[in-house]
Amino acid sequence: MVAFTKGQGTGNDFVIIADPDGEIDLRADQVAALCDRHFGIGADGVLRVVRSKALPEGAAALAENPDAEWFMDYRNADGSIAEMCGNGVRVFAHYLLRAGLAEMADGGSLAIGTRAGVRDVTRSEDGYRADIGRWRLSGEDPLARATGLSVPRPGLGIDVGNPHVVVAIASDAELDGLDLAKAPELAPMPEHGANIEFVVPAEPLVQDGVGHVRMRVFERGVGETLSCGTGIVATALAVRHWAGAGAPDEWRVEVPGGTLGVRVVSREDGEHALLSGTAQLSYRGEIDLA
Amino acid sequence: MVAFTKGQGTGNDFVIIADPDGEIDLRADQVAALCDRHFGIGADGVLRVVRSKALPEGAAALAENPDAEWFMDYRNADGSIAEMCGNGVRVFAHYLLRAGLAEMADGGSLAIGTRAGVRDVTRSEDGYRADIGRWRLSGEDPLARATGLSVPRPGLGIDVGNPHVVVAIASDAELDGLDLAKAPELAPMPEHGANIEFVVPAEPLVQDGVGHVRMRVFERGVGETLSCGTGIVATALAVRHWAGAGAPDEWRVEVPGGTLGVRVVSREDGEHALLSGTAQLSYRGEIDLA
Repeated sequence: MVAFTKGQGTGNDFVIIADPDGEIDLRADQVAALCDRHFGIGADGVLRVVRSKALPEGAAALAENPDAEWFMDYRNADGSIAEMCGNGVRVFAHYLLRAGLAEMADGGSLAIGTRAGVRDVTRSEDGYRADIGRWRLSGEDPLARATGLSVPRPGLGIDVGNPHVVVAIASDAELDGLDLAKAPELAPMPEHGANIEFVVPAEPLVQDGVGHVRMRVFERGVGETLSCGTGIVATALAVRHWAGAGAPDEWRVEVPGGTLGVRVVSREDGEHALLSGTAQLSYRGEIDLA
Repeated sequence: MVAFTKGQGTGNDFVIIADPDGEIDLRADQVAALCDRHFGIGADGVLRVVRSKALPEGAAALAENPDAEWFMDYRNADGSIAEMCGNGVRVFAHYLLRAGLAEMADGGSLAIGTRAGVRDVTRSEDGYRADIGRWRLSGEDPLARATGLSVPRPGLGIDVGNPHVVVAIASDAELDGLDLAKAPELAPMPEHGANIEFVVPAEPLVQDGVGHVRMRVFERGVGETLSCGTGIVATALAVRHWAGAGAPDEWRVEVPGGTLGVRVVSREDGEHALLSGTAQLSYRGEIDLA
């Protein structure tokens, strides 16, 4: 029997397994079975909570920041290993705090080891905020076609550690009418594929200094999801890019699973995007690992 | 905190809540929250396990059969009340036995109260077998259209307590190619709508005295599901009807969630269909009812 906690951030949901000393060797097929929504627990991924010192990958995290006591061993629902997850890292931090495994002073932060490097998580008005890292225009700007899209529309390629194509569409009605049960088409298809975000900028775009946009996302290899952390960041960055000089650094992005905040900040190594939003623990359970 | 067990039968999955004395008043919105696959536990429905004597509806069950100690208070994922569930009643019986709340002698049966009457559940080679009740041709035989169906095809209306339209199609390839993300169309639409089953009879149809058929189902108001108990029964009954005199009374129906058995038996009040298949408990947990 393995004890677990189920958690979610704006509908992106995770099976959290506490394994402080790294004693549970989770096979890919076990992760896939846990994440099956009918035969298992059901989740978008598994967050294994391990002390950095108990994991080979943790050495790099501790070298980068000795405060990174905990490592987020994130697995996708298909069992493959993932580097980072923008919604998962908030849920991970919330779990550490609720389980008493870590503390966060008022105004302080929590350093969490991930395969993409150490991420600092802070509290925010809407929950938690985490650094998603640097971004760049990918230069791959294909034309997008989707069922329900009146005409093919040009996309903007954004790289946020993984590839995205952001496509502006005309109206809320057109966004709601998209059929994302079928994969949209990109021409030409970027070399490594891409997550595709369909976005409707608000009118007016900027309200009280904050940019507003609605979005639906089709995740590469997954399908439409309620919330995709890097897709939300890519959406804000694309609309900010289109808005040009004077565009705000604070954004609110509404997705089917809720609303999240994106903040662009300047760091020594360039512009970083911070993602903020809710993190909640839904229930506890125990299950036999087959 | 409410303790629960998650269970499933051929992928049709349920949150099981033991409430022997009927003390938990489950509101529709609470059921919907429990069944939400991202923000809650996630399930096709809730099975509340209540003593018949602790529930107003239980009086009729006890009058019908004094052995019906336990009542299956079944709720759909949207919170609405349902009369019966062909896969749920097996999972319910399995839970009672595993939790030590009931016993079943070798070759014996377990009487379970439901809003559709008392159902006798027995053990079968593949798990459990339950009486789904009487059936009839509904007389509503519309033409069916679906994405991926080469030509519109005639359906056979079957009533198994709820309305079904069974549509025979040409090949496994055509069945696999159907896009059931979109609702198929029926013309004319039956008065109360219908669940729609697309079926491919095996070749040869009858092997060792047992009829074989593959099926995918679109459930009214739900969408495509892994397994629909009454749809599986309707499928076997329709193909048996088409096969005419001499068709077998034993059937195996393969659905995306597994394979189930259908047995047609004669009772005093007419022909009944029995459904058999797996029932498993996946894990235990506890959750706050909001």
